[in-house]
Amino acid sequence: MIRIVVDAMGGDYAPREIVRGAVEGGRGRDIEVVLVGRREAVEKELSGCDLNEVRINTCWAEETVGMSEDPVQAIRRKPNSSIAVGIKLIKNSHSSAFVSGGNTGAVAAAALLTLGKKKGISRPALSIVLTSPSGPVLFLDVGANPNCKPQHLVQFAEMGNIYMKRIFNISEPRIGLLSNGEEDTKGNKLARATHQLLSKGRLNFLGNVEGQDLPRGKADVVVTDGFTGNVVIKLGEGLGEVFAELSKQAVDNNPLFREAQRRILNYTALGGALLLGVKGNVIITHGKSDAGAIKQAIRLAEQMVEQRVAEAIGH
Amino acid sequence: MIRIVVDAMGGDYAPREIVRGAVEGGRGRDIEVVLVGRREAVEKELSGCDLNEVRINTCWAEETVGMSEDPVQAIRRKPNSSIAVGIKLIKNSHSSAFVSGGNTGAVAAAALLTLGKKKGISRPALSIVLTSPSGPVLFLDVGANPNCKPQHLVQFAEMGNIYMKRIFNISEPRIGLLSNGEEDTKGNKLARATHQLLSKGRLNFLGNVEGQDLPRGKADVVVTDGFTGNVVIKLGEGLGEVFAELSKQAVDNNPLFREAQRRILNYTALGGALLLGVKGNVIITHGKSDAGAIKQAIRLAEQMVEQRVAEAIGH
Repeated sequence: MIRIVVDAMGGDYAPREIVRGAVEGGRGRDIEVVLVGRREAVEKELSGCDLNEVRINTCWAEETVGMSEDPVQAIRRKPNSSIAVGIKLIKNSHSSAFVSGGNTGAVAAAALLTLGKKKGISRPALSIVLTSPSGPVLFLDVGANPNCKPQHLVQFAEMGNIYMKRIFNISEPRIGLLSNGEEDTKGNKLARATHQLLSKGRLNFLGNVEGQDLPRGKADVVVTDGFTGNVVIKLGEGLGEVFAELSKQAVDNNPLFREAQRRILNYTALGGALLLGVKGNVIITHGKSDAGAIKQAIRLAEQMVEQRVAEAIGH
Repeated sequence: MIRIVVDAMGGDYAPREIVRGAVEGGRGRDIEVVLVGRREAVEKELSGCDLNEVRINTCWAEETVGMSEDPVQAIRRKPNSSIAVGIKLIKNSHSSAFVSGGNTGAVAAAALLTLGKKKGISRPALSIVLTSPSGPVLFLDVGANPNCKPQHLVQFAEMGNIYMKRIFNISEPRIGLLSNGEEDTKGNKLARATHQLLSKGRLNFLGNVEGQDLPRGKADVVVTDGFTGNVVIKLGEGLGEVFAELSKQAVDNNPLFREAQRRILNYTALGGALLLGVKGNVIITHGKSDAGAIKQAIRLAEQMVEQRVAEAIGH
């Protein structure tokens, strides 16, 4: 049976929204949901939930990692944190996934230290699915690797290719390289060298894509270094928030507008970020996730297990 | 007298909107506006304009540079293009400025080849003014230099500091370095080395700022390399356009919404981009500029001359 391990303590609205979302995510499905966290807090929230048709299990972890703690130190010093315990629960299990809205760096550090990298992958990448009018776009790396070499970006493209094939059933995902112009000659040194490698490779490489092509969905997978990728997703969030404030009074009650706003605000939030390239299925949700977003993340985790994404990447 | 030289042939709506905007920009002000372009086209548009209280002059240039032409080759091969001729008209004149909505690379190449760099500036930078709830933000480089060294970013900060002092009267502009986290230790190699240099410098350096801080206006000047900067502004444009499409039906007739939309769409368009660091005042407007945008660019050009921006930068 598929087992989804959920960090009950991670995120701005933990544990309440996480526990509720986890219960809803498990209801009526053939999966086991394991909540990891402080006994008192988790039991209190669970007591208010309808547990019909849900397989819920619990695992107590009395420590928590703060959002501003140093990731590697936190994982080393807090072996009983919900992140460290949760990651251990999915070790060596292809049928498990871990979902957390906690300190992103700490989840990545725990995954690297405990699960390890897949063979053939030098740098696991934090990856998000953006929405676009022409379908989902996988964008990576969004922050795990601020300094990259061309071969790292090629590996990102290979991982993204597998993800979009398996999760979205795209037979030959179109791969784009984020650059400052669409011509082959555009790019910084990293982008130009990566362009040469991808041109010679076996993927369906479209060439360079520009900033405006990301929300338009010109490619199915867009690769960049973790510095540029991080700036891009945070700008998207910031623009969405500024827009929401500016237009709040104007159009709060118009349903079509609310849908448009939701799509810009949720620009980074189609289920959560994925840590691709480690030996395991690891999903990092946005800190602001509510029960609905956690439910969505659990569906995504289930799909990643079913479609054997982590198994298919590297060796 | 201040002389503003305008490329009548540059931009998607040239020459009509450019000529009209130039006439409106000159009306009632103590400036001379010089239109550079094809005689037949410019005369035709001028014949439809009210020329009361405007000092308009013309300079014929029968060639034009296409948007996809190689910048340096185009300038070398087309000495009679409106860009090459226009730039020559402002050479060695502190009281002149050049405004063009044509091929950005070609304008930059003509400025570098004909005007030259200011002493002390290794890399002139393409710079834009973003709007934010807390005031204007100068953002550079947005594309002139895809590969930068730390000292180049320091020079960008110095140029931005002068610009914001002189054009927006900010006594000690707050300088931010775009990075993938606000902590000093965040950044790729370039950002971390730049952080060290700016920390030791004499500017009002705030430290790292993140993607979401750009539209929020956390700093008055934000510096980055031209690769990242280009991706950022194009993403802003793309998101604005996608948003406009999504919400068109919903709220087209609501004035508060239209204002919010205008602010996101015009995210990159407060008067035009500035080529800072060359010996002259050079403004590059957005290709989609209409007469209103050109009028705004002419006001900006006038301010740059009055405030002696190009003179104050470097030596």
